[in-house]
Amino acid sequence: MTSDRLSAITPSSQGNDNFGSEVTLDIPPSGMYTGSTDYIVQDDDPQTERGCCEKSGDWAKRTAANVFRKKTLYKRLPILQWLPKYNRDDFVGDLVAGITVGLTVIPQGLAYAGITGLELQYGLYGCFFGCFIYVLFGSSKDVPVGPTAIAALLVYQTARGSLEKTILLTFLTGIIEVLMGILQLGFLIDFVSGPVSAGFTSAVALIIFTSQLKDILVVDTSGDTFVDMWISIGNDIHNISWNDAALGIGCVFLLLAMRVMTTVKIGPKDGQKVWQKVLEKTIWLIGTSRNAVLVILVALMGYVLRTSGIDIFKMVGFVPKGLPEFKMPPFSSTTYTNSTSGEVIETHENFAQMVSSLGAGLIVVPLISLLENTALVQAFADGKPCDANQELIAIGLCNIGNSFAQGFRGNGPIARGAVLNASGVRTQLSNLYTGVIVIFALLWLTPAFYYIPKSALAAIILSAVIFMVQYRVIKPMWRSKKTDLIPGIGAFVACLLLPLQIGILVGIGINVIFILYSAARPKLRVETACTSNGIKYLMLTPDRCLIFPSVEFVRNVINKQGRKSTLPVVLDCTYIYGADFTAAKVVSMLISDFEARNQKLYFYNLQRRVAQVFEGLNKGLIVIYDAEHLEMELAGKAIEANK
Amino acid sequence: MTSDRLSAITPSSQGNDNFGSEVTLDIPPSGMYTGSTDYIVQDDDPQTERGCCEKSGDWAKRTAANVFRKKTLYKRLPILQWLPKYNRDDFVGDLVAGITVGLTVIPQGLAYAGITGLELQYGLYGCFFGCFIYVLFGSSKDVPVGPTAIAALLVYQTARGSLEKTILLTFLTGIIEVLMGILQLGFLIDFVSGPVSAGFTSAVALIIFTSQLKDILVVDTSGDTFVDMWISIGNDIHNISWNDAALGIGCVFLLLAMRVMTTVKIGPKDGQKVWQKVLEKTIWLIGTSRNAVLVILVALMGYVLRTSGIDIFKMVGFVPKGLPEFKMPPFSSTTYTNSTSGEVIETHENFAQMVSSLGAGLIVVPLISLLENTALVQAFADGKPCDANQELIAIGLCNIGNSFAQGFRGNGPIARGAVLNASGVRTQLSNLYTGVIVIFALLWLTPAFYYIPKSALAAIILSAVIFMVQYRVIKPMWRSKKTDLIPGIGAFVACLLLPLQIGILVGIGINVIFILYSAARPKLRVETACTSNGIKYLMLTPDRCLIFPSVEFVRNVINKQGRKSTLPVVLDCTYIYGADFTAAKVVSMLISDFEARNQKLYFYNLQRRVAQVFEGLNKGLIVIYDAEHLEMELAGKAIEANK
Repeated sequence: MTSDRLSAITPSSQGNDNFGSEVTLDIPPSGMYTGSTDYIVQDDDPQTERGCCEKSGDWAKRTAANVFRKKTLYKRLPILQWLPKYNRDDFVGDLVAGITVGLTVIPQGLAYAGITGLELQYGLYGCFFGCFIYVLFGSSKDVPVGPTAIAALLVYQTARGSLEKTILLTFLTGIIEVLMGILQLGFLIDFVSGPVSAGFTSAVALIIFTSQLKDILVVDTSGDTFVDMWISIGNDIHNISWNDAALGIGCVFLLLAMRVMTTVKIGPKDGQKVWQKVLEKTIWLIGTSRNAVLVILVALMGYVLRTSGIDIFKMVGFVPKGLPEFKMPPFSSTTYTNSTSGEVIETHENFAQMVSSLGAGLIVVPLISLLENTALVQAFADGKPCDANQELIAIGLCNIGNSFAQGFRGNGPIARGAVLNASGVRTQLSNLYTGVIVIFALLWLTPAFYYIPKSALAAIILSAVIFMVQYRVIKPMWRSKKTDLIPGIGAFVACLLLPLQIGILVGIGINVIFILYSAARPKLRVETACTSNGIKYLMLTPDRCLIFPSVEFVRNVINKQGRKSTLPVVLDCTYIYGADFTAAKVVSMLISDFEARNQKLYFYNLQRRVAQVFEGLNKGLIVIYDAEHLEMELAGKAIEANK
Repeated sequence: MTSDRLSAITPSSQGNDNFGSEVTLDIPPSGMYTGSTDYIVQDDDPQTERGCCEKSGDWAKRTAANVFRKKTLYKRLPILQWLPKYNRDDFVGDLVAGITVGLTVIPQGLAYAGITGLELQYGLYGCFFGCFIYVLFGSSKDVPVGPTAIAALLVYQTARGSLEKTILLTFLTGIIEVLMGILQLGFLIDFVSGPVSAGFTSAVALIIFTSQLKDILVVDTSGDTFVDMWISIGNDIHNISWNDAALGIGCVFLLLAMRVMTTVKIGPKDGQKVWQKVLEKTIWLIGTSRNAVLVILVALMGYVLRTSGIDIFKMVGFVPKGLPEFKMPPFSSTTYTNSTSGEVIETHENFAQMVSSLGAGLIVVPLISLLENTALVQAFADGKPCDANQELIAIGLCNIGNSFAQGFRGNGPIARGAVLNASGVRTQLSNLYTGVIVIFALLWLTPAFYYIPKSALAAIILSAVIFMVQYRVIKPMWRSKKTDLIPGIGAFVACLLLPLQIGILVGIGINVIFILYSAARPKLRVETACTSNGIKYLMLTPDRCLIFPSVEFVRNVINKQGRKSTLPVVLDCTYIYGADFTAAKVVSMLISDFEARNQKLYFYNLQRRVAQVFEGLNKGLIVIYDAEHLEMELAGKAIEANK
């Protein structure tokens, strides 16, 4: 049975996932595949007969051809898919969801601007133009484009609070995202594993938490890393402002309490009365808009206190009214710093200097942004694949747009995406309504921002980020795969001790070492077996591909086992799905090792593409494809030996 | 049949290769394993149930315990194994082989010193003390310790011709080699594949070839890389010395002709007469000692010319007589350079500065040295494994010794090892005789070296390195695995364009990307199958482990195939030998994807350790181990659907 082997030319209908290479198929052993009618192979293996060169040639052609096809137009402008079908229900759903998110994003935008080290209005400048662009290019209805905590921290760590560099970073990362999307580099985020992503997010949460203590406790939290920040806090702790601290901590508890309101259920699960439904929905809406409610409350309180002449809280202060000026991103910058002698020092940086000071952030920031965005898309996609490349292009264009509106980088954060989804969003158009709400706030609400206490904004951030610490993932990870804690904890610790961009690279590096180790040390099963004629032989079964880091190890094991007995050795190659030139060389050494010992070596059930690799170097390869032949060969050997 | 599954606790007799983890064994499907009596699994997989932490703990304990065991003593001092059995035949074999290699290593040592940029005597200083040490610690009889062309070039590229730095490099790399050996890091060379190694060696040969043109053509060949050197030659070509060039090229042809003498056969293959044997052996010996013969001839010629007052060749000049002073390696250096104004500038470097100028060479040089050495050991080991860690320790101690004798780095080059083996070497003691010959030369022959023309020494190098250009490997590589040409050519080009240490890392990097790609894009076979009751289902078979870079891709393929039809989907997990937490998470997403579509998803033949990973996160996993159960499950599903 095992001997049946079919060849099938793969149909090319599989699109990008399929390179149409010829593959050998094994009919599985048991009798269950009686009605097998259709063979499709998803072949994306570099180790097939068709060279990687040809593939990259194909890839270039395909990419070039794809750019100008109708299907591609629909893919690149998803609005063409959903707008023609847009109806009244969609409009209502999107309007409600868009406004709900608008009420969330205005206080969050102000607060996250604090993380980036910029003035607060810049947080709102990044909340509308990008939204409009996403309506055209976005591939998912669940993405509310806008500032996120992670992006804000990365922006701060890269641009260090310089307005010019922040906007240039937004512009350049936008361009890089579009290029990566066009070049189909979205797959790069596959190399960030779940544990590394969890470790990174948790570290980000702790760092943001710590940085916000500067507004809650009003202490100094300067420093590049988590440790530096705590040292700075320790040195400055005597300057703590008890008023702000009390207000901030109070606000955190209020927000956490209001968060519970989103889960309140009223009445029986089935057969809710109308008033119960309305009440439940109202409570949910207040809970969801808790940030906006809080900001209104504390701003009112601030206004009353200030007009009464009581000045006990640090306020946000003047926020300029109106829309930002639309202009080109800055390609040079001039900063003024005060020297110790009181003089003002003017530092001028040209474009090259600015770019080099942004450094690795230009690559890492888009990748992490994409990671956050695809996590959101997948969370609500019901198993439909997330087009990471289209998301790269859409978010990239949003950020290019934002940079002209002087906003800082944004994408879709998971928490706000969940609000959007729960508010009944139907299409990407919800972003339009969110953007309009933000413009309204900029035009008419900024004078009210003056009275918001800073610690209340910090409380908004704190009550958001504490849920980003992913301690809950540890237990399932421990149950499922303990070794995965190593890259996870590694990334977490590295992100706390080193700059974030380096930290996540350390985590990815640890994971890559795991893959390399797995490639270097396959498992070999060793059995002494017996044919039906009673001829004993040694059966060795490697469990994965044979490539250069493992072949010397495998050769040593096979020789060791071979030398232990004088039995003929059968190498069961069923599980060897790939091999390289180094493996072929070592197989030829193995064959001569066995010839020197006058011991027989058979290759059983070698897959054809692996056999081709081996046969390129070895003419004396004895390959056997079925049990019957193997028995005959072994018997033949026995007869020879008896002669 | 496929349903039979056994568990076996792995016996711990497998030593270091085995971590005694529990493994599930599959009895292969056909009836051939009737007499299977013995199960051994070589398990070195990081993805088994026992965590990597425990493993590294084990590893530390094992390493510590190993240091103090009798077996370890024999392993670390191989002389204890072979010296007690030493007999007269061994003595004769070793003496002849040792002297033959001595006649090769003296001219080569002088010549290779030219590559390092040091005075010639330093080439000989590295040829005796290390030999004596290797007798004690060396694990292979076929290794003649001494300078090699590759090591000399690496020494030059790292130490840049500074004597102090060269000797410090020899000392420090020796210590690093010993440490790496003790820490069992010898496996690192597994990550240098055959193609990368071939590309590197070929580039080294071309670079050495080019650098030696300075002595053959007497033109300037300064420059860090291959391209720089040729530019320098182009600028200086008008200064070519025709006398030296003619002599050098003549010597190259003479050496190549004498090389053919080693393959001359006289008389019939069977039944050679005694005089034929003696003649053949004599011709072979002259051919093998061709470097020594050439040096004697040209030194005589040089002497005659000089005493006749004819000065047409550049000579080696004064070489100090006697053994080097034995002293500590230098931990600081002072160099004198002439400034343009004629002043002598004194530059002092302390230990830290010297170490930092040696840089990555401290790691790369030992690894490449080990690569060369293990290639030699394996070439003549008849399939016995090479103990890379013991070789690291032995070569490390040799180099520490050499640094006290003011020699530069050495190890066993393949070409000289072949001479040793062909001369009938029996044990490591041959190195002793080689060392004695070199001491003899230092004590009495140095005055004669004065008259050797430099171009003759360069000819010795040229006629050795041209055989290191591995163009012959291209054809089998093309036939066997075309994509392997990419890392090979990549390493070759990178080594020519960049410093060698960086070049080989580029080659390794390209290879690592291949491994990662293979981990990221498994192949999936898709079949529409049918049970014996006529129930159709979709059978999807991934061909390798599911780990983080591939799982999202696999999920998309499975969902795509699942959505195309409403058939139940069976995931054949026979070939999945490993999984991680990210895979478990994606499997749980996959399960809910299918639940949302109300489509059945079965996991068929899941290996137990993979099942454990998945079950850590998923309670609703339907795992089926045999065809019968699968048919029943599918039938049950069909009945439900018909209700």
